[in-house]
Formats: sequence, structure tokens, C-alpha cells
Amino acid sequence: MARAPELGSDVHRERHRAVLETAARLICEKGYEAASVQDIADACGLTKAGLYYYIRSKEDLLLEIQNYGMDVFEERVLLPVLTIADPVERLKTCMEKNIHLVTEGWSKEVTIILHEHGTLTGAARAQINARKKRYVHFLESSFEEAMREGRIRRVEPRVAAFSFLGMVLWIYKWYRPEGKLGSDQIAREMQDLFFGGLETVKAKKPARKPATVKARARSKEKAA
Amino acid sequence: MARAPELGSDVHRERHRAVLETAARLICEKGYEAASVQDIADACGLTKAGLYYYIRSKEDLLLEIQNYGMDVFEERVLLPVLTIADPVERLKTCMEKNIHLVTEGWSKEVTIILHEHGTLTGAARAQINARKKRYVHFLESSFEEAMREGRIRRVEPRVAAFSFLGMVLWIYKWYRPEGKLGSDQIAREMQDLFFGGLETVKAKKPARKPATVKARARSKEKAA
Repeated sequence: MARAPELGSDVHRERHRAVLETAARLICEKGYEAASVQDIADACGLTKAGLYYYIRSKEDLLLEIQNYGMDVFEERVLLPVLTIADPVERLKTCMEKNIHLVTEGWSKEVTIILHEHGTLTGAARAQINARKKRYVHFLESSFEEAMREGRIRRVEPRVAAFSFLGMVLWIYKWYRPEGKLGSDQIAREMQDLFFGGLETVKAKKPARKPATVKARARSKEKAA
Repeated sequence: MARAPELGSDVHRERHRAVLETAARLICEKGYEAASVQDIADACGLTKAGLYYYIRSKEDLLLEIQNYGMDVFEERVLLPVLTIADPVERLKTCMEKNIHLVTEGWSKEVTIILHEHGTLTGAARAQINARKKRYVHFLESSFEEAMREGRIRRVEPRVAAFSFLGMVLWIYKWYRPEGKLGSDQIAREMQDLFFGGLETVKAKKPARKPATVKARARSKEKAA
């Protein structure tokens, strides 16, 4: 939020994004210590001064990359699903969107820095951890809500939340864009794997009510 | 296997294990470049010469730690389940044993180096990747076998294998030994989450037959 003014125009936003993704790639390849500001500037096709227009300092880079990762995650995954009333649909759509983000949304190195680089300390670490925890709490409370409404059988919300996350986030370790498994198929298979055993018979009831054409079309769309 | 002669006595094996776990902790804390052989020797309570009795070189350390991790994994998780005839029981027991390994079997830092340090190159990298791939293939072929035998519904074996792995291996990122969730409970919950929706009606049939008191008690236990 505090960085919004800097992200004024779309062009600037795109270049800022490209700088952070390039920096993430170099940090993953060379290590944080070994990747110099000059290396990052070269890789971005910028002078050092030009690079400093986009980043405050090398020290700040890891935090910038992680905040960028969390910004995109919230924009593309979390915010669009918050308004879905049914908790199971909310969780399923969230899983699908998060899988698409991990497979196509940004460079793999952003995910690596977001989830593997324990190098942040102090306030920076606390800031990123708070953003990550918000996601865990969202998942836990959605599972709790789904149980209360009888939409799923009883689960331990914390184990369910972290199982969901583990399945989805581990994808960056094995997914190959050129492989035979596309992200749509992975999303469908994981939704079935995860929710197939959770949803109660009651949850399948809507099919028994005389469904409207629109509702049927929507559910077909989802299944396709 | 090639290292077996060095691991002759139990005492030596225990010290070797302690050295590798201490080195793993230092590498995770300081970074591989920054953690010197002297630092590692100090942390182990050894002289540099004494440390070299256990490790060949600093360069070799990451490979040693990963091979140690894979040795313990194969000994405690993979080998004991290979002989289980029923593929679903094999997979469930494998999940349970792997969860226990991640939560209690060794230091968290061994898992981190095993799964996050992409620093190995060439032959060393190929060696560890081959050992990891053996596990993935074991899981895939067990899922395939379970489908052939009608024990589970249709799944994409690769997605199922990596979903299994993601759930189980992500645990090192959130598990706290002092937390309220014990590893037994996590194992039970994850087995139910993962296999609850996979097993076919055929597999659940015993419950439809007039259940014995024992069987009913057992299923209550599972639900608790």
C-alpha cells in the first residue's frame, strides 16, 4: 500500500515487476551475497542509477520481491475469492487461482524467494509473515465455516489449511511448463483429490433441487 | 552405499550424523559461503582436523548432508513399506512414516538442505535427483497399482504423487514441536484427507456388512 504512488503507471508497474523478477532470478542463481547490484542492473539492461529508480537498496530487495509476490497473490488469488459466499466454492476457486499463479503468474524464482529465503529479519520478516498468516487464517476460517454449515465433514482446520498450501505451493518444485500436465488439469485433479473426500452428501444436494438453467450452466462451466 | 565402510560402528554413525546435522544448521543460519569449516568444527566441539575425519571437504558437505537425509529416509520410510502388499495400505503407511520423519526424524535443517538448496551441480546433483525420483516413481506406481486393483478411483498418478509429497514435505515449514498438533494427529488427519476421497466404495464395503463391535470401535477411533 505504501508503495502505491511509485506504481502509478502501467508501464512503470511492468518495468518494476520485470526488475524484481530479474533480481529474483539472479539471487536464486548466484546467491544473495554474490549477486551484485551491477549484475542485477546489467541483467535488467539498466545502469546502476537506473536500477536505483526501481529499488531502494540491495538490502531492501528481498523484502521488495516478497512484497511484490504477496501483492500479486492478494490481487489475483485472495481478493477475488473473498466475496464467494459458499465456503467450499470459495476454497476450490482459491485453490484453482493459486495453482494458476504458481504455474503461470510470475517467475518461479519469486516463489522460491517468497517461500525459501529465510533471510529477512526484524520488521521486514514480521511484515511478510503477517501477510502469509493472513492467508492461513483465511483458509482455516473457511474450513471452519464449511464445517459449521455442514458442507464438509469434520477436519482439523490447521492441518487442512497447511495440506491445501503444501499441495498447491509444492507445485513450483515439480511443474514444467513444457510438460504434459497443464495447469488447468493440475487444478482440476487437486480440487478433486482434496475436496472429493471432504464434501458431505448434503453438499451435493443442490443437484436434487430443480436447478435453474443458469445454475446448471455455471456448474457445467466449472466442471469443464 | 559407497559410504558404508565409514559408518562402521554405531558410535561413529551417531557422531557422523551429529556433525552433518550441526553443519546443516550452520549452513541454514549463515549461508553456505559464510559458514566456514572452522565455524562448523567449533559448533561440533571438534578441531578442524577432527572435523575432516567426518567430512571430506566443505564442497562435499551439501552432498553429504543430502545423502545422509536420503539414507535415513530410505531406511525409515521407503524400505519398511515396500513389502506391504496392498497398495493403499502401503501408501498410507508411507505417508505416516514420512510425516514422523519430517517432524521427529532429524533436524529441520536437513529437510531444508534436502529440498531447498539447489546448490549441487553436475554428478552430485544427478545422484541426489535420482534418489528423489525413485520415491516419486514408487508413489506413482503405487497409485497406478491401486487403480488397477480398483482400490481407488481414477487419479492422475503424477499429480497424486506430488500432492502427497507436497502435503507431507511442506510440514517442515509450519510444524512446531511445542505446538498443540502432534505428529500422530497430523498423520491421521492427512491420511483421512488424502485417502478419504480416493478409496472406492469397494474399499469401504466392510462397513456395510453387519459390523463387528471391534470394527465399529475402530471406525469411531478414526473419526475422533
